[in-house]
Amino acid sequence: MTKVLIVGGGFAGINAAKVLGGMSGIEVTLIDKRNHHLFQPLLYQVATAGLSPAEIAAPIRSMLSRYANIRVVLGTVQGVDLARMVATTDIGELAFDYLILGCGATHSYFGHDQWEEDAPGLKTLEQATEIRRRVLTAFEDAERIGDPDEQQRLLTFAIVGGGPTGVELAGAIAEMSRFTLARDFRSINARLARVVLLEAGPRILPTFSEDQAARAVKDLETLGVEVRVRNAVTDIDRVGVQLGGERLRAGTVLWAAGVKASPLGAIPGVEVDPQGRVIVEPDLTVKGHPHVFVTGDQARFTHQTGKPLPGTAPVAMQAGRYAARTIVNDLRGRPRAPFHFVDKGQMATIGRSRAILEIGSLKLGGFLAWLLWLVIHIYYLTGSDKRLLVVTEWAWSYATFARGARLITGRDWHLTKSSRS
Amino acid sequence: MTKVLIVGGGFAGINAAKVLGGMSGIEVTLIDKRNHHLFQPLLYQVATAGLSPAEIAAPIRSMLSRYANIRVVLGTVQGVDLARMVATTDIGELAFDYLILGCGATHSYFGHDQWEEDAPGLKTLEQATEIRRRVLTAFEDAERIGDPDEQQRLLTFAIVGGGPTGVELAGAIAEMSRFTLARDFRSINARLARVVLLEAGPRILPTFSEDQAARAVKDLETLGVEVRVRNAVTDIDRVGVQLGGERLRAGTVLWAAGVKASPLGAIPGVEVDPQGRVIVEPDLTVKGHPHVFVTGDQARFTHQTGKPLPGTAPVAMQAGRYAARTIVNDLRGRPRAPFHFVDKGQMATIGRSRAILEIGSLKLGGFLAWLLWLVIHIYYLTGSDKRLLVVTEWAWSYATFARGARLITGRDWHLTKSSRS
Repeated sequence: MTKVLIVGGGFAGINAAKVLGGMSGIEVTLIDKRNHHLFQPLLYQVATAGLSPAEIAAPIRSMLSRYANIRVVLGTVQGVDLARMVATTDIGELAFDYLILGCGATHSYFGHDQWEEDAPGLKTLEQATEIRRRVLTAFEDAERIGDPDEQQRLLTFAIVGGGPTGVELAGAIAEMSRFTLARDFRSINARLARVVLLEAGPRILPTFSEDQAARAVKDLETLGVEVRVRNAVTDIDRVGVQLGGERLRAGTVLWAAGVKASPLGAIPGVEVDPQGRVIVEPDLTVKGHPHVFVTGDQARFTHQTGKPLPGTAPVAMQAGRYAARTIVNDLRGRPRAPFHFVDKGQMATIGRSRAILEIGSLKLGGFLAWLLWLVIHIYYLTGSDKRLLVVTEWAWSYATFARGARLITGRDWHLTKSSRS
Repeated sequence: MTKVLIVGGGFAGINAAKVLGGMSGIEVTLIDKRNHHLFQPLLYQVATAGLSPAEIAAPIRSMLSRYANIRVVLGTVQGVDLARMVATTDIGELAFDYLILGCGATHSYFGHDQWEEDAPGLKTLEQATEIRRRVLTAFEDAERIGDPDEQQRLLTFAIVGGGPTGVELAGAIAEMSRFTLARDFRSINARLARVVLLEAGPRILPTFSEDQAARAVKDLETLGVEVRVRNAVTDIDRVGVQLGGERLRAGTVLWAAGVKASPLGAIPGVEVDPQGRVIVEPDLTVKGHPHVFVTGDQARFTHQTGKPLPGTAPVAMQAGRYAARTIVNDLRGRPRAPFHFVDKGQMATIGRSRAILEIGSLKLGGFLAWLLWLVIHIYYLTGSDKRLLVVTEWAWSYATFARGARLITGRDWHLTKSSRS
């Protein structure tokens, strides 16, 4: 029996496991510290009350339950001993013949970890519901407060980082304030909410072509978002954001700027880049360790284009499948081929009916791009029951401008008393 | 302008507000410390991963946004000054001509508040997701642990209290372990999970007739629940429950026993019963204060049958509407009629296809009762978009035995790092 250990149930790990599921002679253990696989591309919808957490997440265990040769373990990996071929975990050592690391990434505050409390990022369901809590509470607080200056501060939302996540958050918050919330408040005019998208570089969406990025800027401005490029954030605190000499007072600051790879890449003798990503060989393995694959956001793979592949779901899915197939080929005595990423394009959505899309030389924008975005995302949503639910929820939201998940829930169950006074 | 202040957006408060909405000459303020109205009868479904929080909750603000004379405030009421006719809140004083209190109830641990940490109750969404986390984590921990004694302890679920909530929790957990989870685990046999329903009194469901309660016991036993009456809990700690001289080792203990009314009833000069409920006059007002109504779980109303009305949704809804109509009658110079509760029956569901139902002398059980239970609950679910979603989710769950919301999410967003290792 060949023992394959997969660390992480994200896009890479799940896709690797599915390739290995049912293969005779292979015994798979997938370990993750969370019980669920998360469809991260729709996480911004949870943060902006469009979808519920359970609609974009599925238990890893049930996703893989049909494969008798796969064991799913809820646990934390503390380190990997490449010489002894074991991973140390909170449930003891796990030995492996092959290791596939797909531990993902977390936020990087560029050395300012103290910013996290005032500017949460968007990588987990907990962070998404926390952002939802903050955004909705800002409107509630503004409604209660008499002071117009403080009202304006509370209704200012600063989003740091002009990549797809920042663009999607800014568009969704602007739209929510203009359409969904506008009719619900008495004292404040929710339409006056100010959404500022801050990008340190010369333009937003740097991975897209210039004309598509310009189109996104126009779409964002139509929704009322202020797009500010060449605006590097120098400090963040409770009352807002410092942009060099300028002070931007904001009630809610969200972080969509830097990421860094999971610290599990820091294995003695393994080379990582400044973002903590493991520098991998053409076959996604660690140099000198052909049985150890690193996939998804945790890997730095530059062999195809000279530039590192982006930390997106398609890259992780293909890398996971490639690693698993390579193991199968090894066992069958077939030679290894290098990893080749097939780029199927990229997209970003702006509000509820616009998107930009690039597939090779094809560039689309507006409603048609948004419809394609919708179809593709629903298609890839894991589990057909989720798909049905999400389509129902979206069809309804689209028709009514409602956002069905506008819940402010507490940070700790224990502190939230049940009676209503 | 007559100022009506409603404290609490539960069944009583929302129904009172809807009666007063649009009435000329009346200005309504509804204050609640939560932004959402909660459909509490389905909370056990969230706790057992059948439904998502947003499917049984709706923002109070949008439920009432069509009424221009209603202002919704997110805030906490600290006290009421009956002489000055003002409520003190965290956003200052709110004056009123009429007051409707509908602050609900919280759990009572009969003087053992230290039990709460080890035996959470089920009144809020946060508590429901915490219970869901504990139940699902118990299976995960049992899967990882080798020791069979500890495995058996982890797979033992003790539910304290044999009322409808306890019965519904016990049935849902037993069913989930036998059908949904059974196929997902490798090391443990999820079917061996032990669910024990503990009731101090001589029988469960004391508000139902004896034969209906006996039917529920049979249905619970068919699902594998051990029903133990005359078993008073004398202590609860991290490893289980003490029943007099007997020790029941249990990984998860849930509290569905006592409730007490919101402490806001403790207004100087207002008489309360031992559960903290305000003893109200035949017109639901506080003695000597005909402008102050107390409704729902917060009131003790004995004038109709000699016994207090139960703390159920129908009682709260009717009380809220009655209080609002009485205010309207006052303003029109009409005499007050006493509150009269129209009993439309009671029901409890056991697992996914059985229920018991009592409407006057009509007594139903089994699948037909469950279907009626389903129709009634979906009908009363607030907001038609929620209804559509819940029907979709239920239809799917019913056909597949899946439980779509099997998420273990963290207790604090800040402590849950995003990377998967």
